[in-house]
Amino acid sequence: MATAAQFDTLAIIGAGLIGGSIGLAARKRGIARRVVGIGRRQSSLRVARNRGAIDTGTTSVERGVADAELIIVCTPVETIVDLALQAASHCRPGTLITDAGSSKESIVTALDHRLPDTIRYVGSHPMAGSEASGPAHAQEDLLENRMVIVTPTRKSDTEARQQLERFWSALGARVVEMSPTGHDHHVAAVSHVPHLVAAVLAAATSASDLNYVASGWLDTTRVAAGDVELWEQIVRSNRPHVLKSLERFGRLLARLQDAIAKDDDSTLHKVLEEAKRKRDTAMQRQS
Amino acid sequence: MATAAQFDTLAIIGAGLIGGSIGLAARKRGIARRVVGIGRRQSSLRVARNRGAIDTGTTSVERGVADAELIIVCTPVETIVDLALQAASHCRPGTLITDAGSSKESIVTALDHRLPDTIRYVGSHPMAGSEASGPAHAQEDLLENRMVIVTPTRKSDTEARQQLERFWSALGARVVEMSPTGHDHHVAAVSHVPHLVAAVLAAATSASDLNYVASGWLDTTRVAAGDVELWEQIVRSNRPHVLKSLERFGRLLARLQDAIAKDDDSTLHKVLEEAKRKRDTAMQRQS
Repeated sequence: MATAAQFDTLAIIGAGLIGGSIGLAARKRGIARRVVGIGRRQSSLRVARNRGAIDTGTTSVERGVADAELIIVCTPVETIVDLALQAASHCRPGTLITDAGSSKESIVTALDHRLPDTIRYVGSHPMAGSEASGPAHAQEDLLENRMVIVTPTRKSDTEARQQLERFWSALGARVVEMSPTGHDHHVAAVSHVPHLVAAVLAAATSASDLNYVASGWLDTTRVAAGDVELWEQIVRSNRPHVLKSLERFGRLLARLQDAIAKDDDSTLHKVLEEAKRKRDTAMQRQS
Repeated sequence: MATAAQFDTLAIIGAGLIGGSIGLAARKRGIARRVVGIGRRQSSLRVARNRGAIDTGTTSVERGVADAELIIVCTPVETIVDLALQAASHCRPGTLITDAGSSKESIVTALDHRLPDTIRYVGSHPMAGSEASGPAHAQEDLLENRMVIVTPTRKSDTEARQQLERFWSALGARVVEMSPTGHDHHVAAVSHVPHLVAAVLAAATSASDLNYVASGWLDTTRVAAGDVELWEQIVRSNRPHVLKSLERFGRLLARLQDAIAKDDDSTLHKVLEEAKRKRDTAMQRQS
């Protein structure tokens, strides 16, 4: 593509799996002329640079964001607010800030209240990832055809929101807009609760049963291999929606368990059929 | 491989995904000189023949098993006992019969009691499959490096058991021996309950949430796309072990739910960590 770069300097705070993949795609697609990675460890920044995910790396937020037109905070959810505030105090007025956190209401509410009016902030959640983490696993196409949920509020600047959505689209993602609360509600059901269910399934498997797992168990528990700290923070940051969605899961599980205990084949059939219908529908929508 | 064929004629009752894959591998590897497929529908037998899974097809059990030295019943679990008994009444004395059912105690007990002494029977469970079904999805390498659990009993002929294990090994599978009850216990935990959990997760996802699923939900629910009838029968045939294993899952789920509700971060952490440890261990063992 011979299009002009959308941003001169893009700063990515936390150049891990997601941040690194964004950097890689933004550089390869010429969306930013220069990508600065900001991280805690030089070793990790070096990996990001070697992977081609960033042009330069620094451990200083102050230096890293100085020239940025767009700043993306891609760190664990509990550190996002602080880092965005730090970034805001060192970047130029008018800079666009977003984040890639997996929960939105707590982050967006805090930043809407605490960021200075000179900063334009809109939250994002790129719905991509993997059980791997770190810049070594960054992939140029991680966001291609994936959904990025953008969560503007009444405080959001319209032009900033449009600019941000163009950015995600340019990376190949499908942009969907919703409120931070709507986001947290949906994502509890389709991401946070599946993660917890997979984790319970893996953790409840006895050491001796573990010898006999095959592809079914491995796929069903795949996400449980994800980073423990990251997921703890995600669950903590979306507690009410996670609990509501877990209750819904638990009620249907109890109903199925009861049906199996009572030889109620019609309920067993209904649940399996409803599951297949929904799984097939979701699969069709992916292609 | 220039080895002599282990069997002259192999009869496969039910040449679907599993049966078709066995036929494909047995023919390609020269383990049987001739593979006869026995099915209910000519159309399905035609697909199996076109895929190279069988040499000839017939809808008659009587004709299909007449010359067989090894008969494998690869039909849904609730039809296995009847078809094995039918096959036994038409095959030659000394014929080796096995099945590929996903639960073993009810099938093996029934066949141990009801098969004539002239028939040599040992149960099997190839731990392979996919959410797809039918001979069109048969794969020559479906059993390669997969586990096949063979479930001999006191009634089993030693030579028959060894012959059967050589057969599965020749298809590239890793053979593990255990009692039918031991099998049903382990497989409830690593296959039947993961299937039910995946199904409940998919079925509990609301239609609107379904719009936002990504790879995590899709992997965690993958098995729920499997054939509904097949899985109903599997769950029904292994009810006590499935219930016990579901209860174990439910207890840990309730503990986690309670921990999240009470901000008990240490329990949340412990469950996620235990899950990751077990998932990582299982993955390492696969390679």
